[in-house]
Amino acid sequence: MTARPGPTTRTRIRELSGATARDRRDDLATEEPLEIRLTSPDGARRTVAITMRTPGHDFELAAGFLHGEGLAGPKEIAAIAYCTDEDLPPEARYNTVTVRLHGPIPDLPALDRHFLTSSACGVCGSASLDALRDRCVPIPKGLLELTPGLLYGLPDTLRQAQGVFGKTGGLHAAGLFSATGMLVALREDVGRHNAVDKLVGWAGLTERLPLAEHVLMVSGRASYEIMQKALAAGIAVVCAVSAPSSLAVELAREFGMTLVGFLRGERCNVYAGQERILG
Amino acid sequence: MTARPGPTTRTRIRELSGATARDRRDDLATEEPLEIRLTSPDGARRTVAITMRTPGHDFELAAGFLHGEGLAGPKEIAAIAYCTDEDLPPEARYNTVTVRLHGPIPDLPALDRHFLTSSACGVCGSASLDALRDRCVPIPKGLLELTPGLLYGLPDTLRQAQGVFGKTGGLHAAGLFSATGMLVALREDVGRHNAVDKLVGWAGLTERLPLAEHVLMVSGRASYEIMQKALAAGIAVVCAVSAPSSLAVELAREFGMTLVGFLRGERCNVYAGQERILG
Repeated sequence: MTARPGPTTRTRIRELSGATARDRRDDLATEEPLEIRLTSPDGARRTVAITMRTPGHDFELAAGFLHGEGLAGPKEIAAIAYCTDEDLPPEARYNTVTVRLHGPIPDLPALDRHFLTSSACGVCGSASLDALRDRCVPIPKGLLELTPGLLYGLPDTLRQAQGVFGKTGGLHAAGLFSATGMLVALREDVGRHNAVDKLVGWAGLTERLPLAEHVLMVSGRASYEIMQKALAAGIAVVCAVSAPSSLAVELAREFGMTLVGFLRGERCNVYAGQERILG
Repeated sequence: MTARPGPTTRTRIRELSGATARDRRDDLATEEPLEIRLTSPDGARRTVAITMRTPGHDFELAAGFLHGEGLAGPKEIAAIAYCTDEDLPPEARYNTVTVRLHGPIPDLPALDRHFLTSSACGVCGSASLDALRDRCVPIPKGLLELTPGLLYGLPDTLRQAQGVFGKTGGLHAAGLFSATGMLVALREDVGRHNAVDKLVGWAGLTERLPLAEHVLMVSGRASYEIMQKALAAGIAVVCAVSAPSSLAVELAREFGMTLVGFLRGERCNVYAGQERILG
């Protein structure tokens, strides 16, 4: 008898096909809120995020989120634990993660730092990139060179590995690949930003950051948010099955990252950093 | 010379296909931050959200967001305008929307109300649903009955209409359909929750809420967030091209909504409210 939610949830559904209907059981991707709390040695505590996520790899999600937002790097984390107070109802016990920091809790406005530069300046994509420059350095050139053939192989590898977990069809995947195209780690989540946070959190907690010689592949689109998290992790090459947004491309060009989109079959589009693609 | 960003952004890319490469121009879905500010008759002002969105239908996005979060309904809105201060740099002028309310600015903790019930209770899916019950009523039965054939036709209609705008392949679509399967309105965005906000905002600003006799169809997955926005708008039937999450299904069952997933070709899965599907 555990109250800990799993990554999938079994339910009864009705399947319609043409004019026929049948009732059967099906697996859904579990979606539950996760609250991320920070505590400091002086006893301060603060909730910094509540995100809807698929349970599993929650400590990595917390560590990756904090790193991506510039709130705390892996070295600033003393411990991560579930908040399993007896007072909590069983179903809530594994939905709160407490991250104990070595130092004080950072200012929370930092959360909005990459958007809200100043009220005089207003929000815009360029201001968001300017603000990122305060805490992220451009990716160094020359560490990674990939052939188109290597890129073409990534989606299949990701899909095959995902098949093991992803019975539901409802999960976004993020895969970390080596320079030779080997899958190093895979994380899945109902939220694609969460899948990337889990991956970066794993890398941080196992002392692998920065990931300058790795390729990140995501199952969906590449947004500003995904690119910002990849940049913070020092990832040089990001590949997506679908389209990137304008701001994702702008970020990649600004910070020397390679961005590949529509990576399907034997084709893809290179939106930035084509010097890392050979041939 | 306008600084107003459009829904697509033209850029140069390199297209790789097998062993060949060619440089060409391509359209990207524009992604820019939008700041939503509230002001009240007593002169108070407050930023309630900054969201990455595709420019266009920004007033609807603001109105829909406020309605979906339970912060302000359309009748509480006196005016919506861009914050085009001369002090703002041109590229930021169309990224801030000010919503003038008839009354005072609501308490901001309301933003987290659907997650954070109390620190004693903790966060969990059931608590999120409990909190929703404070501000949303279940969808009435019997107003809408649909044939499987009508459902099967929705994705094509949505895709064809989307083709007009969606040159980039990078946009999520949300379509509102009548009980006879006619497309009433379509909105697109890099963020699928934004596409739904734009649709609900349009309905609110044109006095069409609640949408009890309408069907919402989304191009991607159905998450808790999408269902919550649909529920707040009184939508009885939500269809998705891809999978729903566990909490989306739970919400639909709890509030008497019909939820259809994997709607492709002549088939689909009905996860909740099958009494509205005939045959």
